[in-house]
Amino acid sequence: MPPTHRREFLRATALGATAALLARRRAWAQAPASAGPADPALIDDLVAANRILADQGVVDGYGHVSVRHPADPQRYLMSRSLAPELVTAADIMEYDLDSNAVDARGRTSYLERFIHGEIYRARPDVKAVVHDHSPSVIPFGVSTAALRPLYHMGAFLAGGVPVFDIKVAAGGATDMLVRTPALGRALAQTLGARPVALMRGHGAVVVGPSLPVVVYRGVYTEVNARLQAQAMALGGPVTYLDDDEARRAESSVGGTVERPWQLWRRKALAR
Amino acid sequence: MPPTHRREFLRATALGATAALLARRRAWAQAPASAGPADPALIDDLVAANRILADQGVVDGYGHVSVRHPADPQRYLMSRSLAPELVTAADIMEYDLDSNAVDARGRTSYLERFIHGEIYRARPDVKAVVHDHSPSVIPFGVSTAALRPLYHMGAFLAGGVPVFDIKVAAGGATDMLVRTPALGRALAQTLGARPVALMRGHGAVVVGPSLPVVVYRGVYTEVNARLQAQAMALGGPVTYLDDDEARRAESSVGGTVERPWQLWRRKALAR
Amino acid sequence: MPPTHRREFLRATALGATAALLARRRAWAQAPASAGPADPALIDDLVAANRILADQGVVDGYGHVSVRHPADPQRYLMSRSLAPELVTAADIMEYDLDSNAVDARGRTSYLERFIHGEIYRARPDVKAVVHDHSPSVIPFGVSTAALRPLYHMGAFLAGGVPVFDIKVAAGGATDMLVRTPALGRALAQTLGARPVALMRGHGAVVVGPSLPVVVYRGVYTEVNARLQAQAMALGGPVTYLDDDEARRAESSVGGTVERPWQLWRRKALAR
Amino acid sequence: MPPTHRREFLRATALGATAALLARRRAWAQAPASAGPADPALIDDLVAANRILADQGVVDGYGHVSVRHPADPQRYLMSRSLAPELVTAADIMEYDLDSNAVDARGRTSYLERFIHGEIYRARPDVKAVVHDHSPSVIPFGVSTAALRPLYHMGAFLAGGVPVFDIKVAAGGATDMLVRTPALGRALAQTLGARPVALMRGHGAVVVGPSLPVVVYRGVYTEVNARLQAQAMALGGPVTYLDDDEARRAESSVGGTVERPWQLWRRKALAR
Repeated sequence: MPPTHRREFLRATALGATAALLARRRAWAQAPASAGPADPALIDDLVAANRILADQGVVDGYGHVSVRHPADPQRYLMSRSLAPELVTAADIMEYDLDSNAVDARGRTSYLERFIHGEIYRARPDVKAVVHDHSPSVIPFGVSTAALRPLYHMGAFLAGGVPVFDIKVAAGGATDMLVRTPALGRALAQTLGARPVALMRGHGAVVVGPSLPVVVYRGVYTEVNARLQAQAMALGGPVTYLDDDEARRAESSVGGTVERPWQLWRRKALAR
Repeated sequence: MPPTHRREFLRATALGATAALLARRRAWAQAPASAGPADPALIDDLVAANRILADQGVVDGYGHVSVRHPADPQRYLMSRSLAPELVTAADIMEYDLDSNAVDARGRTSYLERFIHGEIYRARPDVKAVVHDHSPSVIPFGVSTAALRPLYHMGAFLAGGVPVFDIKVAAGGATDMLVRTPALGRALAQTLGARPVALMRGHGAVVVGPSLPVVVYRGVYTEVNARLQAQAMALGGPVTYLDDDEARRAESSVGGTVERPWQLWRRKALAR
Repeated sequence: MPPTHRREFLRATALGATAALLARRRAWAQAPASAGPADPALIDDLVAANRILADQGVVDGYGHVSVRHPADPQRYLMSRSLAPELVTAADIMEYDLDSNAVDARGRTSYLERFIHGEIYRARPDVKAVVHDHSPSVIPFGVSTAALRPLYHMGAFLAGGVPVFDIKVAAGGATDMLVRTPALGRALAQTLGARPVALMRGHGAVVVGPSLPVVVYRGVYTEVNARLQAQAMALGGPVTYLDDDEARRAESSVGGTVERPWQLWRRKALAR
Repeated sequence: MPPTHRREFLRATALGATAALLARRRAWAQAPASAGPADPALIDDLVAANRILADQGVVDGYGHVSVRHPADPQRYLMSRSLAPELVTAADIMEYDLDSNAVDARGRTSYLERFIHGEIYRARPDVKAVVHDHSPSVIPFGVSTAALRPLYHMGAFLAGGVPVFDIKVAAGGATDMLVRTPALGRALAQTLGARPVALMRGHGAVVVGPSLPVVVYRGVYTEVNARLQAQAMALGGPVTYLDDDEARRAESSVGGTVERPWQLWRRKALAR
């Protein structure tokens, strides 16, 4: 199925659910082929990313992070359904972009893995995806106040942070979970070319060109949201980075991501 | 005494206190029979629930959690009067629904155990009860702002979160403690068929069909309250889950409770 | 000097400073006699109180806690000038009510020890005193909003929480420190018969009939302040405990202080 | 070059960048001479300062602290580009006041080291400099609300806390980083004779006569900002220290800095 077809907006939940059912049945009948084993260092980084996001308060018992398979852009790697803080290398599974597991071996998958598969499909530039319930971010997803870049560490937010409303996407009430390919596609469409989208009454999705960058963005989306709420509470007008500043700052700060990554990694793996 | 009688609303504190005194004297004279030893795994879960609630900031030196005895719906299990973080299997006592200890052996009981006994009596569906002073929840118990489901993790709040005012229940000033069967019944009546009730100037009571579910609800009542306060502080209108979304989300998320439970349990017991 | 004389309000800072100088010179010349060694269990409790207050976030590198000497109401025990978290039994010194050290042996005393001496003099019922910069409490000391009992754990605040303004007491600008007997007396006068007074632009003083109670009050003054600020931020009117409820609740909760004390003690001493 | 020339305000970024380039080329060609090894105890203090600032939440993966070389006021010591929490004695490098490394040996320098060099040049009284993204401080840098001394621990803020707007200093949009000598000079000029300046959309710079004092100021700038925001949120007018009180309090509290320093040092180095 060509990407343009796939990217079509599936409004009817019923249709989406049926498609999901069919996809699952197909997957059952015949698992997709593996792209082969990934570099153990990448698996280690994916495990570290899970633990860092927990350690930094971006995920709790819920949330997930994935990485695109370096050997095949049609595959991605993500833990089985497990609290991120408990993930080890043995829990990492391989999925195709329909989010069918290559080798489930009885392991349970996250219900919302379609977030990952559909964003990898829609965004060839994306190599890593985080879905979280980042606490300071959630209020911005249910408010009319927009999340904006308060300081240089949040510069990547400058292109605007859209809010995905699943009720609009599905054409009616859902259980709030992105549990079908159609809903995944709708979320990817809301995200567009940006690094972050909020999910109303749910959480956020954050994407990036690597695990260190997506973790950096997850952490500083949380911090920026917290500081922005505090700045707004001071009462006066708030000065945000202008677009030019944000573009330049993002480019500069982007070159320093290895610094916090090494710190976070060491701390998270020491626990 | 038939349940309908018991559920009668005892307005006079004096009457309630007298009834409590008589009940205590009866208990003294003749302790209720035991339903027999409970499964050690359930006792372990009850100990874990105590520690998790402390670890997650839902209880501090105060608060308690109980579980209905699996062998006899007229009995429940709860620690002796002790900070939840310090509870071990040896501290677990058995009570009848009048909240008389089966085998006190000189151990002190929580003053407010009637919360548990009377809810188990009024709600056959309830298998586990938490009473806490959950910090972010307390402000909603003394405010005109209602606690509402801000995101899918708090979907169980959708049926409304009533506030129990002990002064109204008792017909005058009390020491704020649910220290009589009559006050326990009044609280159970305010709770009705819901999972959570706030207690004005005091805390909350949370109920559920199992220990993992009641702990989950205790933790996410706290988180939802914190995030709701933050969302309200952003200034604009706040979009809550609608009833249909909440009903569906609760049903879906309910199936995933084992995920955080395993994480919380491992962390809490490791301390 | 009779207590009525001592309790006279010394408005002039200069006079106070002179009196303090004279007192110090006297102390230099002749240290007061010791009331004898205190029970090692009491010293252990005083060390524990120091560590608990740090562990619970009521004090940081600053703040102090003292206990009246059980053998002589004219003596009190307190650490040398040291961060509370680092205090050990060897750091405990003995003072008379003029806050002269019985046996300094070159050890430095807290500049503000007069808070303790003058409150012990003015309040025979007080056996333990805490001075802290409790973070959530400080905003109430510089605001027109009064600290009030939000829930039963803060019931002891019901008699009103006065704010000591050192500029008024001294009749002009000071360095904000209660560094003279005269300022100590002025603070004791503001405190009156109550358990807590705020100090504008500085912190608070908390008193009680024992170390567990004064620690309990220090911790729950902080928690009550934090929750009250959150309740006020929700926007509507806030319902506080009424005086009758607070009086009854304080009496009941007072009987349970051993429960958190044992928890806090165990945790604080384990670090 | 005489200080008056150096202090000239370089408005054009292009000019600044060119100057920086030239400076770097000179540095490349010929590294400045070393002032000789510093006292190992001072290096230990600098390592401790890094860790304390992380431990107290003033810096995260970013931020830096330096100390002027005791043997040569034209040199300063600072870690290579590394998260402060990870800094060890082996990471400390020596710089001249143009922020050229004396002996880089392939080690990467912080991009914003010019903050340090230019402040040491402009302020002979300054012996230690911190640059941080202190979380509670950042909202005041993007708000019209001024940071003011709420309590005696923040008395050093009394002379006013200026906000450095890099866009004004550079005459147009930048990447928000003080990455040139010209921008460092502009920041030093905004700071003037004060101990703290905020940086709009970025963080703060804090200076002092020693490492313990600059760390104390960094920590209590954060605490004062947090408490001030809370006091403002209570709704009424807030009473700040008046200038006379602040001057006296700063002088008194300044004599006690060793107390928290010993505590912080012990805790930070124990991790």
